[in-house]
Amino acid sequence: MDITQYFNAVGQQARAAARRMAQATTGEKNNALANIAAALRANKATILAANEKDLAAGKENGLDAALLDRLALTPERFNDMVEGLEQIQALADPVGEITNLNYRPSGIQVGHMRVPLGVIGIIYESRPNVTIDAAALCLKSGNATILRGGSEAFASNQAIAACVQQGLKEAGLPVAAVQVLETTDRAAVGALITSPEYVDVIVPRGGKSLIERISRDATVPVIKHLDGNCHTFIDEDADLDKAFNVALNAKTHRYGTCNTLETLLVAEAVAADILPRLAEAYQQEGVELRGCEKTRALLGDITAATETDWEEEFLAPILAIRIVANFEEALDHIHQYSSGHSESIITENYTTARRFLREVDSSSVMINASTRFADGFEYGLGAEIGISTDKLHARGPVGLHGLTSQKWVVLGDGHIRQ
Amino acid sequence: MDITQYFNAVGQQARAAARRMAQATTGEKNNALANIAAALRANKATILAANEKDLAAGKENGLDAALLDRLALTPERFNDMVEGLEQIQALADPVGEITNLNYRPSGIQVGHMRVPLGVIGIIYESRPNVTIDAAALCLKSGNATILRGGSEAFASNQAIAACVQQGLKEAGLPVAAVQVLETTDRAAVGALITSPEYVDVIVPRGGKSLIERISRDATVPVIKHLDGNCHTFIDEDADLDKAFNVALNAKTHRYGTCNTLETLLVAEAVAADILPRLAEAYQQEGVELRGCEKTRALLGDITAATETDWEEEFLAPILAIRIVANFEEALDHIHQYSSGHSESIITENYTTARRFLREVDSSSVMINASTRFADGFEYGLGAEIGISTDKLHARGPVGLHGLTSQKWVVLGDGHIRQ
Repeated sequence: MDITQYFNAVGQQARAAARRMAQATTGEKNNALANIAAALRANKATILAANEKDLAAGKENGLDAALLDRLALTPERFNDMVEGLEQIQALADPVGEITNLNYRPSGIQVGHMRVPLGVIGIIYESRPNVTIDAAALCLKSGNATILRGGSEAFASNQAIAACVQQGLKEAGLPVAAVQVLETTDRAAVGALITSPEYVDVIVPRGGKSLIERISRDATVPVIKHLDGNCHTFIDEDADLDKAFNVALNAKTHRYGTCNTLETLLVAEAVAADILPRLAEAYQQEGVELRGCEKTRALLGDITAATETDWEEEFLAPILAIRIVANFEEALDHIHQYSSGHSESIITENYTTARRFLREVDSSSVMINASTRFADGFEYGLGAEIGISTDKLHARGPVGLHGLTSQKWVVLGDGHIRQ
Repeated sequence: MDITQYFNAVGQQARAAARRMAQATTGEKNNALANIAAALRANKATILAANEKDLAAGKENGLDAALLDRLALTPERFNDMVEGLEQIQALADPVGEITNLNYRPSGIQVGHMRVPLGVIGIIYESRPNVTIDAAALCLKSGNATILRGGSEAFASNQAIAACVQQGLKEAGLPVAAVQVLETTDRAAVGALITSPEYVDVIVPRGGKSLIERISRDATVPVIKHLDGNCHTFIDEDADLDKAFNVALNAKTHRYGTCNTLETLLVAEAVAADILPRLAEAYQQEGVELRGCEKTRALLGDITAATETDWEEEFLAPILAIRIVANFEEALDHIHQYSSGHSESIITENYTTARRFLREVDSSSVMINASTRFADGFEYGLGAEIGISTDKLHARGPVGLHGLTSQKWVVLGDGHIRQ
């Protein structure tokens, strides 16, 4: 296969489909989502067989257990995938919404209209359920999409793609609105991220090295999610019961998620009151603690935290703990080490809470709440295509709105500029 | 000068200043703007002398008349520049605005807070008044900025920079909040656009080739403005008097601006009624007409439009005219040739108007209004740092809001994720 030639065809089809999708009615898009769900249910056996094939090949090629787990379409995941489609169908259509339409002194009316971005390229790991999530979000937001899943899920993704295209066709929408690349050649990724003439934005999902590589090489804008090195700060004015519950939940609810607590900061004034009982609870859950000198003096036999520990997203039952002199020192620590994902303060002090909200520059800033809430579903987006740690366009959980932007609309009655 | 070492120092100072600027109160920022205006007035003679020096050097180096004109700080431009500061001072502060703060079923409250982007790098031509415009918009929106003006305006920009820093200092804000690069070495531009550790976004202002080069080489996100190949379509249901006025204004109000009409599309059904009188009016204004075959058959002796004419932003008294069969053909022409800046339709037909608004994918889409309205002042932004033809983040005129983004805020009362 000549990748350049192949990708040019894909890109041209995507551009044409994007124009049609931008005009698709809410009814057409919802019909397509319902049709895709029906097609997936009808072809469950075929899809699971394709997934078995991918799993067998993966085992043969020595994939590790974690990768095989993500690759597997269990019956539960299959059902979640289909239900996800129905949830996205139920969301309000963001496209065409007109806001802030106001008269100007010249007599024209000026407002904003929400519109799709165009063609969205998504590059993700070998998780076949992401194929449907991503396709459905792009479809509902009126975008065309080009999907490039991990090569280990190739057969699964092709089987799912057939259902998506059947669903689009039955709804009278272009099948090219969702294209799953029919090659595992890495050159196709290169073409995808360097073709602004065909692609308006790239959303990479996966490990940090993949995302860094794509961000470095892309000439198309990227909505990216790097680390989630999240902090919780127990202020000297914290309610210590809330502090206990929130700090424990933020670390132990799930270990492998980006919104999990990685470094706990504790004001010196309350450290002796809260840290010993928190440490005991963490240790009961099997969390390894790594502390600063003051923490170790208080808690006794725990590992010394190194510079790397402050910087790292553990994604594991490991927690770094630092005792800070005060609020200012906590802010400085967060400013220096945070990856800009999510940070929370536990405090009853009005002024401190208000300053934290304003002064911490992360995509989610919380008061008296677990960082685990940083999630598109919890925020009411219905679904998310990722969590952005960028500053432009969309910060934090990216849902349907993040896949659109706003153009200006101007209504006149023969108005001319004076 | 070691550019790498110099730029690292600039970048580090900008980062530190950005943190302080994000917390600056509206009062502090307004004081700084007032102080800068006062300093400019007090140092008018020095600044104009510096500008004379730049102009003399420019003449010696054979700059053309247009460049010399843009470089010149006339007394009128000087006054406009100072008044611009006062207008920006009067604008509402976008930073810290909290919107859509709603309770979720979990009990947490989730909303959006508007925050500065951080450090904004602006690369522009030798127009010293842009130094103040750009500095003021970034300052008011709580950002730090690194300015790199054209080398021909070096002395003017340094004299202006001294006033900006005096104004910041008097307001108790870091002088590094606005840094004008103290070198004309092109390597500094390279460093600016490839240092995401110091710079959050680049706004290039200038000719197409400069912007294309920066977009290609930048590893920092770019808010860019490429061409303004703007269209007006006179529909078969147009009020022909409105059509006459709007089409004439859109082309002849000013020739060198990006929102000027470049191609006029006319529905065949009304071409004979409107085109001859419009052509006469254009020709009286000295506009050269280039037409399709049908237009030439109707108007007689005008130049034949080539493919290049449909693609070009003339920025001159030249207009391409095409007679199209109907609305659909007009949409296709716009889809193929538009640069996505601004397009207008003249029609009294409700359905056609509604479709045009929805189906044309440009940063400004208008009904019965001159494309010359596509401007930050006319839209009520107070001022603009440019007009974006990008799809992400900000489309069309970019004012204070375009220099900010939104983070999520979460308020809880000890809430944990179930």
